[in-house]
Amino acid sequence: MPLDLLKDYQIPGTSPGTLTAAEGESGPARIFLTSYTPGRLETREVADAEALRGLAAGEGVHWVQVIGLGDVSTIGRIGDVFGLHPLALEDVVHLGQRPKVEDYENVVFATCQILEAETGSVGKFQVSLFLGPGFVVTFQESGEDRLAPIRSRLEVPQGRLRNRGPGYLAYAILDRVVDSAFPALESIGERLEDLDDRILERPDRESMERLQEIRKDLLRLRQVLWPQREVLARLARDEHDLLGNDTRLYLRDCHDHAVQALEVSENYREMASGLLDIYLSSLSNRLGDVMRVLTIISTVFIPLGFLAGVYGMNFDTGGGWNMPELGWKYGYLAFWACCIAAASGMLYLFRRKGWL
Amino acid sequence: MPLDLLKDYQIPGTSPGTLTAAEGESGPARIFLTSYTPGRLETREVADAEALRGLAAGEGVHWVQVIGLGDVSTIGRIGDVFGLHPLALEDVVHLGQRPKVEDYENVVFATCQILEAETGSVGKFQVSLFLGPGFVVTFQESGEDRLAPIRSRLEVPQGRLRNRGPGYLAYAILDRVVDSAFPALESIGERLEDLDDRILERPDRESMERLQEIRKDLLRLRQVLWPQREVLARLARDEHDLLGNDTRLYLRDCHDHAVQALEVSENYREMASGLLDIYLSSLSNRLGDVMRVLTIISTVFIPLGFLAGVYGMNFDTGGGWNMPELGWKYGYLAFWACCIAAASGMLYLFRRKGWL
Amino acid sequence: MPLDLLKDYQIPGTSPGTLTAAEGESGPARIFLTSYTPGRLETREVADAEALRGLAAGEGVHWVQVIGLGDVSTIGRIGDVFGLHPLALEDVVHLGQRPKVEDYENVVFATCQILEAETGSVGKFQVSLFLGPGFVVTFQESGEDRLAPIRSRLEVPQGRLRNRGPGYLAYAILDRVVDSAFPALESIGERLEDLDDRILERPDRESMERLQEIRKDLLRLRQVLWPQREVLARLARDEHDLLGNDTRLYLRDCHDHAVQALEVSENYREMASGLLDIYLSSLSNRLGDVMRVLTIISTVFIPLGFLAGVYGMNFDTGGGWNMPELGWKYGYLAFWACCIAAASGMLYLFRRKGWL
Amino acid sequence: MPLDLLKDYQIPGTSPGTLTAAEGESGPARIFLTSYTPGRLETREVADAEALRGLAAGEGVHWVQVIGLGDVSTIGRIGDVFGLHPLALEDVVHLGQRPKVEDYENVVFATCQILEAETGSVGKFQVSLFLGPGFVVTFQESGEDRLAPIRSRLEVPQGRLRNRGPGYLAYAILDRVVDSAFPALESIGERLEDLDDRILERPDRESMERLQEIRKDLLRLRQVLWPQREVLARLARDEHDLLGNDTRLYLRDCHDHAVQALEVSENYREMASGLLDIYLSSLSNRLGDVMRVLTIISTVFIPLGFLAGVYGMNFDTGGGWNMPELGWKYGYLAFWACCIAAASGMLYLFRRKGWL
Amino acid sequence: MPLDLLKDYQIPGTSPGTLTAAEGESGPARIFLTSYTPGRLETREVADAEALRGLAAGEGVHWVQVIGLGDVSTIGRIGDVFGLHPLALEDVVHLGQRPKVEDYENVVFATCQILEAETGSVGKFQVSLFLGPGFVVTFQESGEDRLAPIRSRLEVPQGRLRNRGPGYLAYAILDRVVDSAFPALESIGERLEDLDDRILERPDRESMERLQEIRKDLLRLRQVLWPQREVLARLARDEHDLLGNDTRLYLRDCHDHAVQALEVSENYREMASGLLDIYLSSLSNRLGDVMRVLTIISTVFIPLGFLAGVYGMNFDTGGGWNMPELGWKYGYLAFWACCIAAASGMLYLFRRKGWL
Repeated sequence: MPLDLLKDYQIPGTSPGTLTAAEGESGPARIFLTSYTPGRLETREVADAEALRGLAAGEGVHWVQVIGLGDVSTIGRIGDVFGLHPLALEDVVHLGQRPKVEDYENVVFATCQILEAETGSVGKFQVSLFLGPGFVVTFQESGEDRLAPIRSRLEVPQGRLRNRGPGYLAYAILDRVVDSAFPALESIGERLEDLDDRILERPDRESMERLQEIRKDLLRLRQVLWPQREVLARLARDEHDLLGNDTRLYLRDCHDHAVQALEVSENYREMASGLLDIYLSSLSNRLGDVMRVLTIISTVFIPLGFLAGVYGMNFDTGGGWNMPELGWKYGYLAFWACCIAAASGMLYLFRRKGWL
Repeated sequence: MPLDLLKDYQIPGTSPGTLTAAEGESGPARIFLTSYTPGRLETREVADAEALRGLAAGEGVHWVQVIGLGDVSTIGRIGDVFGLHPLALEDVVHLGQRPKVEDYENVVFATCQILEAETGSVGKFQVSLFLGPGFVVTFQESGEDRLAPIRSRLEVPQGRLRNRGPGYLAYAILDRVVDSAFPALESIGERLEDLDDRILERPDRESMERLQEIRKDLLRLRQVLWPQREVLARLARDEHDLLGNDTRLYLRDCHDHAVQALEVSENYREMASGLLDIYLSSLSNRLGDVMRVLTIISTVFIPLGFLAGVYGMNFDTGGGWNMPELGWKYGYLAFWACCIAAASGMLYLFRRKGWL
Repeated sequence: MPLDLLKDYQIPGTSPGTLTAAEGESGPARIFLTSYTPGRLETREVADAEALRGLAAGEGVHWVQVIGLGDVSTIGRIGDVFGLHPLALEDVVHLGQRPKVEDYENVVFATCQILEAETGSVGKFQVSLFLGPGFVVTFQESGEDRLAPIRSRLEVPQGRLRNRGPGYLAYAILDRVVDSAFPALESIGERLEDLDDRILERPDRESMERLQEIRKDLLRLRQVLWPQREVLARLARDEHDLLGNDTRLYLRDCHDHAVQALEVSENYREMASGLLDIYLSSLSNRLGDVMRVLTIISTVFIPLGFLAGVYGMNFDTGGGWNMPELGWKYGYLAFWACCIAAASGMLYLFRRKGWL
Repeated sequence: MPLDLLKDYQIPGTSPGTLTAAEGESGPARIFLTSYTPGRLETREVADAEALRGLAAGEGVHWVQVIGLGDVSTIGRIGDVFGLHPLALEDVVHLGQRPKVEDYENVVFATCQILEAETGSVGKFQVSLFLGPGFVVTFQESGEDRLAPIRSRLEVPQGRLRNRGPGYLAYAILDRVVDSAFPALESIGERLEDLDDRILERPDRESMERLQEIRKDLLRLRQVLWPQREVLARLARDEHDLLGNDTRLYLRDCHDHAVQALEVSENYREMASGLLDIYLSSLSNRLGDVMRVLTIISTVFIPLGFLAGVYGMNFDTGGGWNMPELGWKYGYLAFWACCIAAASGMLYLFRRKGWL
Repeated sequence: MPLDLLKDYQIPGTSPGTLTAAEGESGPARIFLTSYTPGRLETREVADAEALRGLAAGEGVHWVQVIGLGDVSTIGRIGDVFGLHPLALEDVVHLGQRPKVEDYENVVFATCQILEAETGSVGKFQVSLFLGPGFVVTFQESGEDRLAPIRSRLEVPQGRLRNRGPGYLAYAILDRVVDSAFPALESIGERLEDLDDRILERPDRESMERLQEIRKDLLRLRQVLWPQREVLARLARDEHDLLGNDTRLYLRDCHDHAVQALEVSENYREMASGLLDIYLSSLSNRLGDVMRVLTIISTVFIPLGFLAGVYGMNFDTGGGWNMPELGWKYGYLAFWACCIAAASGMLYLFRRKGWL
């Protein structure tokens, strides 16, 4: 399984701000434009980035949603239209980016990761966001539109989202991103519980492998959740005109969620290392059980085997001193009596030691 | 056993401030109104939230106590009456909330967890509190009223609680919440001590399971105690008009208690990992004991068994070189002498090695 | 052994500042009053707390030393006479208090723990101190007067202690408390050294128990030393008029001692966990020794036993193919030669593997 | 394998600023001078350091690149020409230097390490940089010119690098250095993945050795990455006139990269210690497998061996009580029936215990 | 081996500033006075501390070097002559002091530890330093003069040391002290490398003991290096007139060295705990090897032994059903064929399992 902790990176020494197609992405970037005022809402797909020029001057809020990161020339043109910094665009097309926020004079740039529980794993999907006066531009990987719930909420005319500025839209998107950690954490929590039930019973290799998968997923999560918390902290603390004072309260709430997600993931990490302790001690326990059986059987039968061997010896019984037992009338019965007594004595001792 | 570290959360992408019934809660919310001045005290149950409107304008302190979080419309109306922020109300109905404090202009909001030792476990019960001018609103889960001791103290006319403002009432509630950690810690301490006595004697699976339960409880506690300490630190530090200067001294004391509870829980965590070390070393010790017995028995009897086998061989004793011992007069006695000598020698060596 | 990490606490929900007799304390509180100026020194026992009223107005320094925490009414009256805050008095009567310092307008309150090495353990004894204008009030548990050395030093007329104000007296008491950690640490250091010598030789259960005792003592110490360091840091940093500028230099030195004691205790904790590693590896080593003996004996004698068994078989030697060895002239000698050769070969292999 | 964590150091007590030839370096230092303005670019090798005097006065940017640290007199003269501080020059010639930045009035000095993945290891190559008004001086170890990509980028007339001042050149060099960590991390990541696949299958000594190599490499990396992050943080934060406001944005991006490299390396460290856990548990598992086989075989055959021994005894069968079984018609078949029944019973029990 | 982590301390409760002879020190304190200006250098031994009075008033720099801490009255008089604070003098005579710096109005006091690699261990030697206007007073333990290199450097008339004030002399001494950590670290590094090579081959008790020695030495080092770094940080940061602005640059370099020494020692600690992991896993591996041999031998020979036992039974072969094999013509050969087949089968299985 790939570790997947390192982001895409450029060859060291190349010029900063160079755009290269994101790994695994190809095909054109689709551009959706959603413009709204409290009274009006319009969504359409835009073919050419140039059509977006002059948008910010108009009234209302404009949300430019770019899906697909394979077409760097389109992305470059959008950056040109909205005056986005080349360094920020470089971050947009490199997947696996560490969540960050950067304040470019009149545009705020943030990049985050939506987390999604997949069967037995956790996927991350990069969302980059530019907030400027009157507009929000978001970039997502191609595939499912993971911001669709925001678009649905925009359709409610009396919704808070429709009646506020672009800062609140940016918040709504970030809130969607941050809250995506909870279902992912829940799925990990369930896997931990399943493993918790299983590991004492069957400390086998599969348990260890499952545990290891969970630990890797938690590492991956932490790599996203730590910096995401910082991003929200900075946005909630700094005084951006673009965000507005009332939105800051919402960002603070969002920050609280980010902190909580992080804490839960840290606690899961502790749980996971607790499970490792259980696993190792169960292994030890099982080894002890095995050895106890071996010891009991050996300790009982090896001496008896010796005794049987003794009476199988061929000493010349002519002289009175040599193996007179063989000639006794009840010799054989006495032999069995000895054996049973010895075995019982041993078992009694073992029971007293708590080995049985 | 459920891990229970994750709070209830909303589906990512839903509008913030949406109220949904708290998990496991149903039925109506009961509302109790306690109004008091130094001279007068009145408690009554209120059927309709609207009856509370205009309350804050009157003199005296009003404590609105809501028990049961299943009826979101009532909770919404109470929020409306007292001007509580929808984000705060969202936190109220999501159980397992991380303790937090938020300052909404003229209302301070805090949410905490009362801890309660249950048999072999620790329960947590969410208490949310709004402090405004002249009023305190608290929300609790349905079930037992865990703030009853505060109500009893209000009945004493000359009590400090009766003669001070709503800030002191809020403090008294928070103090009740913070101090609830001590009995919970005490019960965990007792379970640790019991286990400490038991684990050297019987490092069995049950010990491990008990230890694991304690570690989970300590994780759960820590998840509450860390942020609770921050809540108290912020309340004791920030200058809220609502709290008043003299109450801050009490909050600082309460903060000290929160710190102490946290430190004790951290020390218990160290104790618990010390017990794990003991457990693992006891397992090792027991395995060593088992192996020593096996080794002693095998080492003594396997060579003797070989010797007995030798004299059970059927070599043709016609020639003088073949097994002359069998014909000796005291051959059999010599055999036993050899056996006893060898066994004694072995046992002497084992004793010198300290294995006996 | 009790863990003893939790302080006495009040039932959650009771009114703050309620005084209850300290656990394990009973009988009356004895009150000693020491009044001194550079020229004069007077010590007497005071029967009634009321006799202390008006004391602070007089010249000189007054040290009221209360020994025994069982009589809460006397303690309450002393608090009344000197205007001590009820929350502070609540801390005085709860033993096992976390060291803390609190600044009540004109009185500084500090509570600390004197550490004392007992045989194989470490005891802690609470000392609470109020520093006001012209007076110092200290509270100790009943039993030995652990501040006696301070009283002796007061008797030297030209001593620094006698010629300075109450701030220096408070410092002297705190210095006594902080320095009490060093003999306690020394005794733990000696126990660690003894164990270090012993544990490689005899990794038995007693070693583990001793190690566990030491680790618990270090936990207990840390619980005192961490907050004590903070107490000194705050006193040395804050500008209390009561302490005076020249005394602050002494407090800074005292703070350095507190830091050093803490660091030594942290290093001892590392030593202790190093000893655990040694213990576990010694256990492993011993198990390896045991198994090596078993393996050598078994590996040598089990094949030989098989060989002896072969020649004990009763195949009909009539046909030429059945066990002709039995009829050989030197068959028996050949058998022994085989045995010795096989055993020697095995032992040679074992020696080459380093098992012998 | 050398640990290689300690830098070259001077004999304690020698005068600071003394230059001694860097370890492993010899031969002359080669000096390359690259002078450029937006319109012009010239690169030439300079034989004598004196030829560089007066350079800074001219227009354009001058990059003096020194390759080879064996010739201290040349390095001293360059320092003299550009007014570089002797302490900084001392750092230049001591390899294995901790990355640092120092601000000498009109010159900024930084020293860093380029990381390079070698087969199964990670190499580090020191780059020191002086940024002054109009000039940048860099010092590298002899060997390959690891800053060649920067020189190539300078050749593009319209490139950002060509059109900005020396601050941007310094940034480009630092960016090259910081980004060199990513390929190094990628190669370590691949080694971790390989080991991850291997270690569950074959927990042998080679796995342990490989793991240990990776852990040492990560230690080495961390020793570089931690201080390098600080260096970038300071450069991005402090307001140096030499760097300029617009360059700071780029340095902040570079700082983000440094942070990300550090985080990835820390996560790899966690992965590595996870692999150690897997290794140890796999060892335990294998031991358990071995012991289970031994136990099953011994438990089945030792009792059977005893039984066979019994019927090999030579009791005198004259009396009716002695070993009548030997005379039974189907005695031998009964013996085998017993054996097979006992063995089957044992195997059934083992299967139920999950040992088979 | 003594742990040696605790400093000498006074009996708690004694008056601060009391001088007692340093542990293990006796005999008189030797006093050397070195006075120098750029043009002149004079060194002589001084018999009586009083001869030093008035020195500071004269021109030039005066370095009073006191070697031997056994004669507290002389030390007290020197303190008197130069106006040194009694608390500082108390620190001077207590060996094992935590490195610290204290600012007494017109005198700066610092105490540090010179580290020195001894065979298989690390020694520490306390150096205390007072820097005043025109003078530096140093105190060392009796024995070798570990500051001799500084005295040699003073003899160079054009040296930087000779031409600057007492602040630079103090820096030179501190630099000597800080840099003493590098050879000590190097020697520990070599011991770690030796052990690294050895521990996989021979995980015996001596390896463990050596590892433990190294860990103790690293603890001892850390106890010195942490506070020493703080001392340098404070000196480099605070604006002491006595040190001067240009010396601060040198102190910052010295601080960098202190940080680097600390980091290397922390990395060595990680290396050491990595070695512990290797040691434990090697123990496990060896145990596994031993058990594998035992299992192979037992598994092969115990069933064969049973078979031989069977044909040694004495069933009456009269009836056709009893042990007909004994009468077969090639019975014995068939027996051996069975044995060889069984053994080969076992060995084949073991090889497939990778146990051979």
